[in-house]
Amino acid sequence: MNDVTVIKIGGNIIDDPVSLQKFLHSFSKEKGARVLIHGGGKKASELSRTMGVEPRMIEGRRITDAATLEIVTMVYAGLINKNIVAQLQSLQVNALGLTGADLNLIKARKRENAQVDYGFVGDFVTEDVNTGQLSRLLENGITPVFCALTHDMHGSLLNTNADSLAAGIAIALSEKFNVHLHLCFEKPGVLRDAENDKSVILQLDKNEYLSLKSAGKIFEGMIPKLDNAFKAFDKDVDVTIRHALNNSTGTKLIRHE
Amino acid sequence: MNDVTVIKIGGNIIDDPVSLQKFLHSFSKEKGARVLIHGGGKKASELSRTMGVEPRMIEGRRITDAATLEIVTMVYAGLINKNIVAQLQSLQVNALGLTGADLNLIKARKRENAQVDYGFVGDFVTEDVNTGQLSRLLENGITPVFCALTHDMHGSLLNTNADSLAAGIAIALSEKFNVHLHLCFEKPGVLRDAENDKSVILQLDKNEYLSLKSAGKIFEGMIPKLDNAFKAFDKDVDVTIRHALNNSTGTKLIRHE
Repeated sequence: MNDVTVIKIGGNIIDDPVSLQKFLHSFSKEKGARVLIHGGGKKASELSRTMGVEPRMIEGRRITDAATLEIVTMVYAGLINKNIVAQLQSLQVNALGLTGADLNLIKARKRENAQVDYGFVGDFVTEDVNTGQLSRLLENGITPVFCALTHDMHGSLLNTNADSLAAGIAIALSEKFNVHLHLCFEKPGVLRDAENDKSVILQLDKNEYLSLKSAGKIFEGMIPKLDNAFKAFDKDVDVTIRHALNNSTGTKLIRHE
Repeated sequence: MNDVTVIKIGGNIIDDPVSLQKFLHSFSKEKGARVLIHGGGKKASELSRTMGVEPRMIEGRRITDAATLEIVTMVYAGLINKNIVAQLQSLQVNALGLTGADLNLIKARKRENAQVDYGFVGDFVTEDVNTGQLSRLLENGITPVFCALTHDMHGSLLNTNADSLAAGIAIALSEKFNVHLHLCFEKPGVLRDAENDKSVILQLDKNEYLSLKSAGKIFEGMIPKLDNAFKAFDKDVDVTIRHALNNSTGTKLIRHE
């Protein structure tokens, strides 16, 4: 079985052109099949404010009304995605910029929630990933670059969480490939003490995660990130949580011994 | 040799959601391999003004400084392109939204002009079209949807005229396919009298074009459009100039008898 590396990068790298260039340079040197998934960064909120649409977040999730969907489509699928593609091409990586609508790669359903109307936000399951089409791209030496938009198969794009997208793609590809998932963020790994960047937990199993969570040591945005990470790990995906510019350290998920 | 239809649509269709939907519906019913190329519409200028960047045009061409390149990348490659892709997928067309940077499909060179600095504007020749890669997409039943952005292979996107892009793609594909190019615009065809929509010239040869041009009957935006059209026609592309919503009439280019 062939190896595929799925790397997710977030706003901290995207918002800084120098860091992004450094990351893409190191990404271009990696061997083998790769999939890149990128988040949004500050640009969408900035553009939103310029256009008089005040960004609304509930528990770290962007409420995506029709105007916001237009904005994230412009920023994620246009500006960020295509600039990454152009830069990767200049580094000899045969990149292809994608949403889930392209080639019907990832369909999703609009999130229904009795308490909160998230708007045009989509969730998907493993079966919604078009693994055949995605595999063909990889087998043809193409590097898919996804922004975190899916579609509903009725003509509408849907905003989707980038960590969930990365984990979902990794799980779907694990049916055919030996998948390595790297969830990159602004820290060098999962920290035992959120205030101390030197406290990286090098190996984390589910029991330790659950006990750190109940002790309040792991909190906020790290919880959905790790839930996504363990979901992929449970499907035999090799998972590392690290800084985008530091491949030598990070947290590896391991089985409980 | 197989047939490929290359259709270019412009702003008049893109700016009106109902017309666009009608066009996409009829596009989805057409048989055989197809490539869709879309222009920009008013949205880029609107967004430009909202962001405090006054659009500048010289002879109908947009001056593309760095801020404008960001805007057209958001609007063309993001908003317009991906909404067309999502709509086509809902109509069972396996669409893939593209710039020239994706899969290195169309590289270009920044336009050098001693008189005017057009900024990030790119021109390309037939050899710059990655015909092999584009053919593979078509042979796999994929419908490429291009916005009019190319790239310089040094990491930058370039704004490119959509008619030139459509003609260039048609010419490149004519090496391998029997190509039909439809340049669609807001009129039912090339008019003998610009004020009278009923005066469509059904068949136009180059001599007649040149004489109508010298007589001032064909002018302004129609001149570069027809120059692109005849460039493709000279390479054995079958060319029709028509309204996007009216496939039953239009101007067909013919050889001088």
